[in-house]
Amino acid sequence: MGKRWKILGVAGIFALVVGAESSNKPKIGALPDKPPEPPDNPTTPEKVELGKLLYFDPRLSGDGSVSCATCHDPNHGWAKKRVMSPAYPENKHFRHSPTVLNVAYNMLMFWDGRAKSLEEQAEKPILSPFEMNMNYDLLEERLKAIPGYVERFKKAFPGEKDPVNIKNVAKAIAAFERTIVCNDSPFDLYMKGDKNAMTPEQVKGMKLFVGKAGCVQCHNGVNFTDDKFHVTGVPKHKLESNALVAATRNFVLREAGFKNPESIDRDLGRYFLTKKEEDKGSFKTPTLRNVSLTPPYMHNGVFKNLDEVIEFYDKGGGNVPNKSKLLKPLNLSDEEKANLRAFLEALTCKNVPVVEEPELPEYKN
Amino acid sequence: MGKRWKILGVAGIFALVVGAESSNKPKIGALPDKPPEPPDNPTTPEKVELGKLLYFDPRLSGDGSVSCATCHDPNHGWAKKRVMSPAYPENKHFRHSPTVLNVAYNMLMFWDGRAKSLEEQAEKPILSPFEMNMNYDLLEERLKAIPGYVERFKKAFPGEKDPVNIKNVAKAIAAFERTIVCNDSPFDLYMKGDKNAMTPEQVKGMKLFVGKAGCVQCHNGVNFTDDKFHVTGVPKHKLESNALVAATRNFVLREAGFKNPESIDRDLGRYFLTKKEEDKGSFKTPTLRNVSLTPPYMHNGVFKNLDEVIEFYDKGGGNVPNKSKLLKPLNLSDEEKANLRAFLEALTCKNVPVVEEPELPEYKN
Repeated sequence: MGKRWKILGVAGIFALVVGAESSNKPKIGALPDKPPEPPDNPTTPEKVELGKLLYFDPRLSGDGSVSCATCHDPNHGWAKKRVMSPAYPENKHFRHSPTVLNVAYNMLMFWDGRAKSLEEQAEKPILSPFEMNMNYDLLEERLKAIPGYVERFKKAFPGEKDPVNIKNVAKAIAAFERTIVCNDSPFDLYMKGDKNAMTPEQVKGMKLFVGKAGCVQCHNGVNFTDDKFHVTGVPKHKLESNALVAATRNFVLREAGFKNPESIDRDLGRYFLTKKEEDKGSFKTPTLRNVSLTPPYMHNGVFKNLDEVIEFYDKGGGNVPNKSKLLKPLNLSDEEKANLRAFLEALTCKNVPVVEEPELPEYKN
Repeated sequence: MGKRWKILGVAGIFALVVGAESSNKPKIGALPDKPPEPPDNPTTPEKVELGKLLYFDPRLSGDGSVSCATCHDPNHGWAKKRVMSPAYPENKHFRHSPTVLNVAYNMLMFWDGRAKSLEEQAEKPILSPFEMNMNYDLLEERLKAIPGYVERFKKAFPGEKDPVNIKNVAKAIAAFERTIVCNDSPFDLYMKGDKNAMTPEQVKGMKLFVGKAGCVQCHNGVNFTDDKFHVTGVPKHKLESNALVAATRNFVLREAGFKNPESIDRDLGRYFLTKKEEDKGSFKTPTLRNVSLTPPYMHNGVFKNLDEVIEFYDKGGGNVPNKSKLLKPLNLSDEEKANLRAFLEALTCKNVPVVEEPELPEYKN
């Protein structure tokens, strides 16, 4: 958390806190203008330009058909309006696409938190056989066959002898993603002092969010996530029983060393990574910023809209033995639910970054 | 060689020899009716049926677009009428497809001989990122999602607890390939006693083949290959300079541990495997059976027709320092060249196995 709060400190007056009854309580706040950057990958215009091309380039996938933008689509809130994420052809994914918007402020990536930086994240789907299915060495050779890339890698990573490599691919994409941020939501404007930026319903919703409804227990910080994992008992989606969805999940389980993947009939989140009993069914708290743009919801896209999500938490989440103790029935009135929803909508930026698909450089010959 | 000659022994009277001035000279002969089978993979109708489905199933490739039949096509002499083999989408291959027809009689597979059995061979293109680009574990999960395959693996490999696995995929394909054989060429009939099976020109060509032209030095045995490697100085094809062809070649070189793939501008065959100087530019002697069906010729498809191949050898092969000492200018007359060509055409079966693309089993759900 240190890095993010340091940024908040820099942001100064924007780091306001609402609903804090004591300073130990979790807080929400306005986003600073710029996300943190790792010391070994400072953002430069050259890297961002290269990263943008790579982000949209399906040649980063084995058969040239899937780009980062396929699953994290600028036209769909930088996520995807599908239950399960699109997958590499002939496969079906077993998880819903999270948004790239403001992901630069997160500390952990993926629903199971298996990457600690955007750089680490960007590499993984390229290699995954059911996502982009590309061999890193072959990717490097393919990129070297595109003079427009060779030039741009040289400019983006000056002084490096052999800059066209997978590490730099990931660095450039991460640098581009650090520009896919926005902080002009009604909530941000309100927090920066414009008390008319949110409607009275939204303000009431915010008070419920940090108070009675308890959402803030997990959805806190400037990006509305504690970057931790919780078991909430999200119901299974019927697609999780599809044979090809199961095949993908079984594959992931096998790679993780599970001996009988067939005995597990649903996504158990971080447990697939840690094999710890207490992690069964636990997923990373997602950001709620711009959440109105990215239905459906949850790791498996099981809820079609925010009302279904609010109903789920109003009932105290799902019926599982080891779900988070933070969850209990809320018994919200219809008006309170409407206010909570209004507040969630106040987290939507007025100017979501619009990026048009760039013209990609061509192979030589 | 032991295994093949044992078969010849069994074949008895078919193992005739022509043009043998002494018993130490290389020989050619009729094909026995059945190719050898490895003790751990006896051919059964169940395996052949399963192997046939797998051979034609593009779901063995990452994106479900490439099957064994894509590059080894029953409609093109079980090879491909293209300079370079088709590749996985977005890639270009750097070698020409050899035929599967009668490959069951070979001792070494691939142009560089890197597999010693059909079973070993069948696995490799499935994994290769520029051929079928499939992960073995994901393939197993995918096949398990197809009930028609699960049943057939059980029948083909009875008694095995978990028969759907990559080793059995390869065994079934190999068993199917052992049925893609034919031995009713005019040459075979001639060798079995029908002296009218070949035309007088073909008989003259055969005598040149084993005599003055010296082809038999490498193209010997019942399958017209010594299963060895020779440097003949085949000229470079202009496609070898294509950026994506080079990318594939560079990738192979990198995987083999070469540090500067870019310094090599053409396919050097077995050298890529052994890194031995004497193997630079050496390739496995291909079969000549059914050769009239499979233009273009050589590892890089550089010769469009048999006349170009005959011209090449007539001149003593290419101009390289370390090519085989077996090669020297032949100075054949036009008539001799025509006879040689006629003999090569006498190696074409009357009944090349015709296999129609089968109806493939479907995913459950």
